Amino acid sequence: MPTTKLIDYDDASPRVKAVYDDIRATRKTDFINNFWKALANQPDNLERVWGELRDVMGPRTLDPMAKEMIYIAVSIANNCSYCVHSHTASARAKGMTEEQYQELMAVVAMAHKTNSLANGLQVPVDPEFMPEG
Amino acid sequence: MPTTKLIDYDDASPRVKAVYDDIRATRKTDFINNFWKALANQPDNLERVWGELRDVMGPRTLDPMAKEMIYIAVSIANNCSYCVHSHTASARAKGMTEEQYQELMAVVAMAHKTNSLANGLQVPVDPEFMPEG
Amino acid sequence: MPTTKLIDYDDASPRVKAVYDDIRATRKTDFINNFWKALANQPDNLERVWGELRDVMGPRTLDPMAKEMIYIAVSIANNCSYCVHSHTASARAKGMTEEQYQELMAVVAMAHKTNSLANGLQVPVDPEFMPEG
Amino acid sequence: MPTTKLIDYDDASPRVKAVYDDIRATRKTDFINNFWKALANQPDNLERVWGELRDVMGPRTLDPMAKEMIYIAVSIANNCSYCVHSHTASARAKGMTEEQYQELMAVVAMAHKTNSLANGLQVPVDPEFMPEG
Amino acid sequence: MPTTKLIDYDDASPRVKAVYDDIRATRKTDFINNFWKALANQPDNLERVWGELRDVMGPRTLDPMAKEMIYIAVSIANNCSYCVHSHTASARAKGMTEEQYQELMAVVAMAHKTNSLANGLQVPVDPEFMPEG
Amino acid sequence: MPTTKLIDYDDASPRVKAVYDDIRATRKTDFINNFWKALANQPDNLERVWGELRDVMGPRTLDPMAKEMIYIAVSIANNCSYCVHSHTASARAKGMTEEQYQELMAVVAMAHKTNSLANGLQVPVDPEFMPEG
Repeated sequence: MPTTKLIDYDDASPRVKAVYDDIRATRKTDFINNFWKALANQPDNLERVWGELRDVMGPRTLDPMAKEMIYIAVSIANNCSYCVHSHTASARAKGMTEEQYQELMAVVAMAHKTNSLANGLQVPVDPEFMPEG
Repeated sequence: MPTTKLIDYDDASPRVKAVYDDIRATRKTDFINNFWKALANQPDNLERVWGELRDVMGPRTLDPMAKEMIYIAVSIANNCSYCVHSHTASARAKGMTEEQYQELMAVVAMAHKTNSLANGLQVPVDPEFMPEG
Repeated sequence: MPTTKLIDYDDASPRVKAVYDDIRATRKTDFINNFWKALANQPDNLERVWGELRDVMGPRTLDPMAKEMIYIAVSIANNCSYCVHSHTASARAKGMTEEQYQELMAVVAMAHKTNSLANGLQVPVDPEFMPEG
Repeated sequence: MPTTKLIDYDDASPRVKAVYDDIRATRKTDFINNFWKALANQPDNLERVWGELRDVMGPRTLDPMAKEMIYIAVSIANNCSYCVHSHTASARAKGMTEEQYQELMAVVAMAHKTNSLANGLQVPVDPEFMPEG
Repeated sequence: MPTTKLIDYDDASPRVKAVYDDIRATRKTDFINNFWKALANQPDNLERVWGELRDVMGPRTLDPMAKEMIYIAVSIANNCSYCVHSHTASARAKGMTEEQYQELMAVVAMAHKTNSLANGLQVPVDPEFMPEG
Repeated sequence: MPTTKLIDYDDASPRVKAVYDDIRATRKTDFINNFWKALANQPDNLERVWGELRDVMGPRTLDPMAKEMIYIAVSIANNCSYCVHSHTASARAKGMTEEQYQELMAVVAMAHKTNSLANGLQVPVDPEFMPEG
């Protein structure tokens, strides 16, 4: 249950409708997911977040599926259930196979494990890892 | 400063030396980084973690550089300074360009932002994201 | 579903009833929320937590609504769904407008974003930020 | 030690210099802190983050000092040492007294404590906290 | 709702059945909990995680109930609802009394509180805490 | 470097000195660690936190060393460097052997790993784990 109401297209203000229209055009689908419907109560945030997401997740130098996997990894660490579900669905839609999903989960699990060990043992950073300035 | 001492190759037990030798052979370098030198006080953990890391980070279905980026993303979320440094160095060694690093940071920052919004607004998961069982 | 049972007023021991009575008197309402009903299985914790909350959240030098917003910010970061809901309700009861809620979410999202960038880039603290000792 | 080099004003590209100039003009100081010098290696991120920060932290409906306190609260939860230092300095510059700082720390500590209890006991959200839709 | 389907014993491949059989034999129960049924879609992860869990949680030098409590403490911090429930049930099955559960929650809550204060005040580590090398 | 100054015994107010005296008497040592010296700027917090710590970490139903291990586990998860160091030192002072420390780290690492998998796969809680009630 959200802390605020979910705003459907037909109930949206013109300002919100303009964002919804851009989401639909960019993604080539009529589907507006709940994240945007909740943010629609906060038009400034809606416009800012959508604009940034469209820009950041659009084509640049990294593989689109790899970007979704990175997004999943962060979402697991923050335990954002909504984001885990939505980006797992996106990664699959962009071609993530079950073998790749398995490997993603293995890397994520490994990272959490070694993160906890390095933090637990308070391992000092090797000078070799430092960038030459 | 670590919570335990760092064990160099020459001071290591035969059991630890065997792991160090495998690290060197697998990575084709003499360099043993501090993470392993700290874990060397705990031989069971040393063997288990190295064995798993070698297996999980070895070649499978995902791009090796993408795997390092996923590792960086988790390490940032857990704020493991050691791991951020070591895996950023690894990703660069595997070919990550400055443009790709910039894009990685943009995706990671975006994910933290939308994670906090989805958790803050407690957005319910859309049924459309659920896998068909 | 909680890990323990929820104890209603009528089923509570005299020691728990005394805390419930104080909650009701302090908040000027008969409503006892589930957090206290779950803690009631642990009377030492119930008394300690309620006593501290009453003291800390009571009037001192900060604006009561600002304190609820700080509480929401922490609860989002820890992804405590219960706490996000209860303190969002409290902040609204203390006068938080939709515009202020929007601004809170924007600040929280911004902070998560720059936190991840500062941790990802491992930015060293400027000496200018240090307090003069 | 950062994962990348820090770019001073004199070594900056025109694109980066334009951001630095805007930071200086907005903040009415010549001081450019390390966060921006590290981000300067990633001009897209630099522009996006500065633009958003200037907008989000600028005057709207919340008290500027309260916003810095919210920022501190998130930064503590994410354990961003850089951000804790920079925003504690900012909150003090905006008038936070020692009494208010004490109260902030008490609220933050309280929130972490009750967050862990609510998550540990898996307390179900009371229907009374839900917004009427 | 999981991101993947849950695989029951009768629908499992021989490789997965072998793990399920080992879980049943090790735990002396027919019950296979959902964690393994979800992991069963990823046979490499299933085998690796079960093998490690059986080894790590098996009898060594620490009290089995204390180990479950440590597991609960980590799970609360990561807010893994599934893990909080499963390990609270395990700790109870291994003899955790309500008084001990209360004390566990008090220690966990205290730790979150002082962690946030130490991070908020950025307290420097005393040299006295450092191990002699 | 702390965000505030560290207050030594000789510079402390009578109110702070009373807490320092109680710390020394309770712990049977003259050593006052930095955590208290930083909190001493906030006398209300100093008194509240010390009083709670003395009570919660004092003898009740759990083994004192186990309680320090639980504290370490939480501190690793929150990545509180100060707390990891201070409670690792305390656990050792209370008898934690290197074998037990190794086992603690293995349990903590395992928990972070399975937490991330359960959150990543969004595994639903088995009804069998629910308390009857």
